[in-house]
Amino acid sequence: MTSSLPSIARPVFIVSDGTAITAETLAHSIMTQFPNLNYEQRRMPFINTVEKAQVAAQQICDAEKTSGIRPIIFTTFVDPSIMRAFNDNVSGHIIDLFRKFVGPLETELGIKCAHSIGQSHKIRDGEKYNERIAAIDYTLQHDDGQTNRGLDEADVILVGVSRSGKTPTSLFLAMQFGIKVANYPLIPEDFDRGCLPDALVPLRKKLFGLSIRPERLSEIRNERRPNSRYASIENCRREILDAEDLMSRENIRWLNSTHKSIEEISATIMETLGLDQKRAA
Amino acid sequence: MTSSLPSIARPVFIVSDGTAITAETLAHSIMTQFPNLNYEQRRMPFINTVEKAQVAAQQICDAEKTSGIRPIIFTTFVDPSIMRAFNDNVSGHIIDLFRKFVGPLETELGIKCAHSIGQSHKIRDGEKYNERIAAIDYTLQHDDGQTNRGLDEADVILVGVSRSGKTPTSLFLAMQFGIKVANYPLIPEDFDRGCLPDALVPLRKKLFGLSIRPERLSEIRNERRPNSRYASIENCRREILDAEDLMSRENIRWLNSTHKSIEEISATIMETLGLDQKRAA
Repeated sequence: MTSSLPSIARPVFIVSDGTAITAETLAHSIMTQFPNLNYEQRRMPFINTVEKAQVAAQQICDAEKTSGIRPIIFTTFVDPSIMRAFNDNVSGHIIDLFRKFVGPLETELGIKCAHSIGQSHKIRDGEKYNERIAAIDYTLQHDDGQTNRGLDEADVILVGVSRSGKTPTSLFLAMQFGIKVANYPLIPEDFDRGCLPDALVPLRKKLFGLSIRPERLSEIRNERRPNSRYASIENCRREILDAEDLMSRENIRWLNSTHKSIEEISATIMETLGLDQKRAA
Repeated sequence: MTSSLPSIARPVFIVSDGTAITAETLAHSIMTQFPNLNYEQRRMPFINTVEKAQVAAQQICDAEKTSGIRPIIFTTFVDPSIMRAFNDNVSGHIIDLFRKFVGPLETELGIKCAHSIGQSHKIRDGEKYNERIAAIDYTLQHDDGQTNRGLDEADVILVGVSRSGKTPTSLFLAMQFGIKVANYPLIPEDFDRGCLPDALVPLRKKLFGLSIRPERLSEIRNERRPNSRYASIENCRREILDAEDLMSRENIRWLNSTHKSIEEISATIMETLGLDQKRAA
């Protein structure tokens, strides 16, 4: 990508009455559509009073003076009076991530919006929230084949060679979707025997495999154990070949994680194993 | 909350050319403004071809026939031809989470949007992505005071009694914000000595404490070790009192996690320790 970036970054603010986490994610998603834009993003969470809104507006005005560039401002105010206090005191391109949709939805649904602040990350459904925390606990306890106890309670069991991305993917799945994930390493002993670890055989339907390019695997392993046989490209090539061979023979669905983010890997796993449907039910 | 929920849930679909994770989060945030609405939400990720868009549209039409209720459909299509193929074949209340903002932004910025699909969770900045994965690794290695090695590399060190919510919060911070988090239990030995564990003393500025209501703590501990002294309400009360006392004496900022989600706790920590600014820099 050739680019002619201006030397000064355009200030981008994400201003929310809640955690600003949702707003930041969507703002990021929108901004990535302008890959040549040089910008600097700043979250302003918990702007949930008129006074805080005025202070935030002032800080943004100051940033405009300093940079000399009109800021982009993403907002998610639910309370109209706080929104007004902010909008009246700020200059910049305001993108209201909320109001544009809520009005038409009120009409469609024939009910009024609650105008309650920062609902999205509040604990509204205590049971569901506790399940999510329990899923994280479960996933930590079942990381890296630590225990076979309760393995059948897993919604997914990730398999793959050491350092193929199982742990971060497992944790993301648990945290984002509240599902229980175990992960289990495939090791040279499994390849020598030519079959799955015994504990996994009855749970075949829950298995999903991660593979990775041998060059990348070798890089990652070298960070952990430099110049070891474990990290050598020959050994990585051998393990990956054996693992992919085993997964194919055992009819385990798998993907190559090399160029995928944990979000992409996780969404693919959810879709492939039909877990979105399970969650909705 | 009193409610008169209709017996049939309104179908809500989140249709995206990418992982649908961002879209789901925002959709959830918008829908929580209608707390009395009975709805059933379903993600449809990776709708990234005209054919898939037509199939998805058909599935939604079928859902409308089954439920007899007009669906709400959140979309994030970036490619106009895929969006058209979807919109032309579906009925329902469509909320386009993307296009409404991108057009005005193009005008504001004076540059055209890239119209590239599912960018938000693609690995665009490899170095930044690797840092995020390294943060998760670091956080796992420094969970529950496992090691003091490299403790000074932490961006935050969470402290608190056992089961006060340190681990899930640490992992969320690492995963969402890419920061390195260690967490360190405060134990009765620390309270007897009346001071912080030695390893933490030089790192005081990085400390943040979690407390929790004794009743809730006792509940959580009872799940792990039923009817133990560890889980008894008297012991939980004592530990919480001692921990809050120690944190106040040592000038450690802390919050009560009882009614807060990991998102709310994390956003508060980021703000209190000024870590948003650090990230932006």
